[in-house]
Amino acid sequence: MNILMIGAGNVAWHLAPALEKAGHHISIVYSRQLENAQLLAQQLNNALATDQTDFRDVGADLALIAIKDDAIATIVKQLQLPNHTVIAHTSGNTPLQIFEHLPGNNDFGVFYPLQTFSKQKLVDFSSIPFCIEALNSSTETFLFDLAGQLSNSIHSVNSYQRKILHVAAVIACNFTNHLFAQSDHILQKEGLSFDLLKPLIQETVEKAMKNAPHKTQTGPAVRNDTRVIQDHLKYLKNNPSAYQVYETITESILLWYGSGENLID
Amino acid sequence: MNILMIGAGNVAWHLAPALEKAGHHISIVYSRQLENAQLLAQQLNNALATDQTDFRDVGADLALIAIKDDAIATIVKQLQLPNHTVIAHTSGNTPLQIFEHLPGNNDFGVFYPLQTFSKQKLVDFSSIPFCIEALNSSTETFLFDLAGQLSNSIHSVNSYQRKILHVAAVIACNFTNHLFAQSDHILQKEGLSFDLLKPLIQETVEKAMKNAPHKTQTGPAVRNDTRVIQDHLKYLKNNPSAYQVYETITESILLWYGSGENLID
Repeated sequence: MNILMIGAGNVAWHLAPALEKAGHHISIVYSRQLENAQLLAQQLNNALATDQTDFRDVGADLALIAIKDDAIATIVKQLQLPNHTVIAHTSGNTPLQIFEHLPGNNDFGVFYPLQTFSKQKLVDFSSIPFCIEALNSSTETFLFDLAGQLSNSIHSVNSYQRKILHVAAVIACNFTNHLFAQSDHILQKEGLSFDLLKPLIQETVEKAMKNAPHKTQTGPAVRNDTRVIQDHLKYLKNNPSAYQVYETITESILLWYGSGENLID
Repeated sequence: MNILMIGAGNVAWHLAPALEKAGHHISIVYSRQLENAQLLAQQLNNALATDQTDFRDVGADLALIAIKDDAIATIVKQLQLPNHTVIAHTSGNTPLQIFEHLPGNNDFGVFYPLQTFSKQKLVDFSSIPFCIEALNSSTETFLFDLAGQLSNSIHSVNSYQRKILHVAAVIACNFTNHLFAQSDHILQKEGLSFDLLKPLIQETVEKAMKNAPHKTQTGPAVRNDTRVIQDHLKYLKNNPSAYQVYETITESILLWYGSGENLID
């Protein structure tokens, strides 16, 4: 398959070589910054770098848009593609409808690898979930087949479900990271190292991943241990943001696991 | 060394064989439930099981109390030990002073492995942090040496610091687990599987563990992306506990990373 890679950021940086490895040819890498396109094109076999958006004379089966969410609408208006080229973006937050007013008459879809990428770190795509959505079933099959060459975890996920996935990812990933930061900060203030907690954190996450997390809940809130909760809140009273987080999540756990009454106030 | 294991729960279940492997002899396993003591003793070499607390006629270098926090005070009053036997508990939440009114005249300390244990799962003690505290420096050295035979991560941690460690562990582990449960619940309601998020969660945790977590913060809150935050809150409005958690942690992230103003209300 002949592929145009629109973008040269973290996602493109990992997807392009993986697609090559699966036997496809990345003929062109586009970036608004020509140097970025060149950097990625150099990693590939016979790929040209460009900052131009007219691809009408290029033979391509797929144009894959892997750029920042807020730049997708703009590039979609600029891209000029042969009519048979399928166009797909790799964004978790961008609805399929962004392609509705394409200047051409191309089939379109979403090809979203649900993972965070950084340039320095090697990526094993085989276990990364791909969320696929498409204008029609032939395009969906086309994108399913391609994703299936990279990964064992391919899912049909519509734009609404992708939004819910994003809410859930913010809670399970971004918020979790902030809890780690809060915890680290509390320890540092007392001259203790966050390293002390790392084995426990890893074990906690491992258990939650293997079982349903609502079955692995431990701690003072689920035990309804008011004495410990009050003691911790007393300690946190000079740390308003940690206090607020402690109180809110404790209340949520008490609510979930059925203490019935609010034991914090 | 001759060791009395006071308790036959999860911690004792893993510590006793590890101490044997390090060359020590668990002479007696005590439990209030004789059958539990017997179950653990059967796993060991020449260990006796008992539900009696008079050990005055037993030669023992160390009595290790590995029982539930709220039962420690009671057992400390009941235990009768030879004067030279050091007594230590394995609890993260129990101060050293619990030993102040020992009936005998024994040296005492804390021997706290900072990890969660379950009977089914094998434990590699070598990377588990041991937090040591003791009445005097000779007892501290004694417990440091013993912990050093099990693990490479031994720390002098006083009772106040242990309390702070507990606050930090509740936030980084118990609360994190609840975020996973909230996320899982949101996905299930929409017919999506939590499995979809697991690779992303694992990568997020790995990044936070390798770097300082305040440097790996991503998501709409740290980007100050009010449109996405409002959209997510709107979606969560019929899920009060998730709404509350989303709002509080988002506010905390905004506060930490300096948006300066409250963008949620």
